[in-house]
Amino acid sequence: MLTPTRNLAATLAAIAPLDERRRAAAWARLDALTKPRRSLGRLEELAATAATVLGERRGAKSALVFAADHGVAAEGVSAYPQEVTAQMVANFAAGGAAVNVIARQHGIEVVVVDVGVASTAPPPASVVAARVAPGTRNLLREPAMTADEARRALEVGIAIAEREAARGVTMIALGEMGIANTTAAAAVTAALLRAPVATVVGPGTGLDPAGVARKQEVIAAALARHTPDPSRPLDVLAAVGGLEIAAIAGACLGAAAGRCLVVVDGFIASAGALVALRLAPAARPYCVFAHRSPEPGHAAILAALDASPLLDLEMRLGEGTGACLGIALAETSLRLFDEMATFESAGVARRRDLEPDGRD
Amino acid sequence: MLTPTRNLAATLAAIAPLDERRRAAAWARLDALTKPRRSLGRLEELAATAATVLGERRGAKSALVFAADHGVAAEGVSAYPQEVTAQMVANFAAGGAAVNVIARQHGIEVVVVDVGVASTAPPPASVVAARVAPGTRNLLREPAMTADEARRALEVGIAIAEREAARGVTMIALGEMGIANTTAAAAVTAALLRAPVATVVGPGTGLDPAGVARKQEVIAAALARHTPDPSRPLDVLAAVGGLEIAAIAGACLGAAAGRCLVVVDGFIASAGALVALRLAPAARPYCVFAHRSPEPGHAAILAALDASPLLDLEMRLGEGTGACLGIALAETSLRLFDEMATFESAGVARRRDLEPDGRD
Repeated sequence: MLTPTRNLAATLAAIAPLDERRRAAAWARLDALTKPRRSLGRLEELAATAATVLGERRGAKSALVFAADHGVAAEGVSAYPQEVTAQMVANFAAGGAAVNVIARQHGIEVVVVDVGVASTAPPPASVVAARVAPGTRNLLREPAMTADEARRALEVGIAIAEREAARGVTMIALGEMGIANTTAAAAVTAALLRAPVATVVGPGTGLDPAGVARKQEVIAAALARHTPDPSRPLDVLAAVGGLEIAAIAGACLGAAAGRCLVVVDGFIASAGALVALRLAPAARPYCVFAHRSPEPGHAAILAALDASPLLDLEMRLGEGTGACLGIALAETSLRLFDEMATFESAGVARRRDLEPDGRD
Repeated sequence: MLTPTRNLAATLAAIAPLDERRRAAAWARLDALTKPRRSLGRLEELAATAATVLGERRGAKSALVFAADHGVAAEGVSAYPQEVTAQMVANFAAGGAAVNVIARQHGIEVVVVDVGVASTAPPPASVVAARVAPGTRNLLREPAMTADEARRALEVGIAIAEREAARGVTMIALGEMGIANTTAAAAVTAALLRAPVATVVGPGTGLDPAGVARKQEVIAAALARHTPDPSRPLDVLAAVGGLEIAAIAGACLGAAAGRCLVVVDGFIASAGALVALRLAPAARPYCVFAHRSPEPGHAAILAALDASPLLDLEMRLGEGTGACLGIALAETSLRLFDEMATFESAGVARRRDLEPDGRD
């Protein structure tokens, strides 16, 4: 089993507030580059965030894909059979999944972590073997995890993020694979945000309306059974979460503690980030939300975190696909920040109304 | 002067309708890849478009940046002085502008074309020297161009796109640089779409409200003076357009004739594409609109062309910056199309409700 250098409490304590002088300096540089002020829009905000998190550090990029199964799959809440989780882990290992393709384009290393696939066979050799349990229990009938399992899955995520930061990674994409995990993500979201179940449940990978209704009933019944305390994120996680959602929460915390830019994928990864940010609000400025998922629960999380995703490409695949596109944009923003000429260096005239001192 | 192999009439005649059997085959392949059906959203639409345009061809990528000046700059319609056009051309040549940085990240060659910069000095050596005139005339006082100048600028664009296609380029980004060119783009848009001037005029690179009002007055007066016929795009172009807008229109046509994917930048490039698509509606399926500009005229063009841009990053820089990000997404979509495993090849189970034949 992977054990982090810092346990959860030490990781939470290690997340430092960002240096706001660095942010001010980043904006001053952005305003000196050869373009009308703020004309690169969201890319400038992203550059300011990334430069504030990273300072001068420009490291490698990785996509962490946490895979696990869900006992609640037995309730027919997914359009796909449970064995697809293990099959997709094999597909990741072979480089044939969407996340592999996008990551290759952008020089991002894919790190697949089996934190709880329901299989008796070991994962492929290139996959990090860190199975806390062979999937969660059926959250409709009993708590998905014990408190100890939830903590261990979370610490798997911390350990992986720590390892990435230690080897020089500075941007980390958070993704996942797990049949039925929109059910767990919706349950976590409803519980933590005290949101009506109907407002956070969607079709996932392709349920029909009857399937969505069934999924809502399952989540409502599970929350009524377990009544997790919304002020205790780890309790919510154990009752209705998932091993990969716990690991994503841990990776988010570990990456922030390791001063990495954290690029969050869609609904399920955002549910993990929500758990992390309830545990450590100080990690919020390290996080970028890459894309908007059509799942209704994602909108609820984004609103709660005051996050506006970079992309809206109607993607609903998961795996970290959207987060890898987000990393490519973060890379763009930092290259603009680092490589563009300034008005002064290029001898380009400033706005007429800003002459003669040339400053806004 | 650059002379295309095909003149305008021959180029229009060379734009072939796309093969819809190829599009159907592209969707069949997309539906066989290891992901829930259509779960890559806009990336799948983009892959279907690109695969239909390109078939098996996977070539190089280039960003064409057409630069020209505008006599109407004398009316104070831009926040920047006219000499910035030539200064930015030098910045492009030196590799220090935003478009250079984004293009480098994504392996896109930047081709800068001086189609009408107001300078007595020749352009830098790496810039294509194709000056039709040292900027347009002041469209408030007289037609911006003669019919012959407009045609020659258009054929510069055709010639450049032809040359790119001939050397194996298959994706072409269309961008521009020209102080005061949002004024010309807005005038072209208002004329071609018969739209009220107030609905297509915005702050450009940063006019204040009084400046925007002045710009509206200038455009309204110019259109009242010239009354170009909206059914004659070349007349509109000559009366109130720009040399770079004409060249973009030509490049759009030349790229479609050369069976390239055309990736259009923001407002000004889209105004050029609008001229092209009024001349050759058959070129529309070759065009992808990369990003949504905050300029109100862009929304009018997009609506008229039934186009939904890929990105909305609040970028308002031009140069082809948004189009280069669009090319990166088109590249992503084609790599997914080419490289992802299928359910069959990876041994991944399909949806339960699609068994046993596995087809939707």
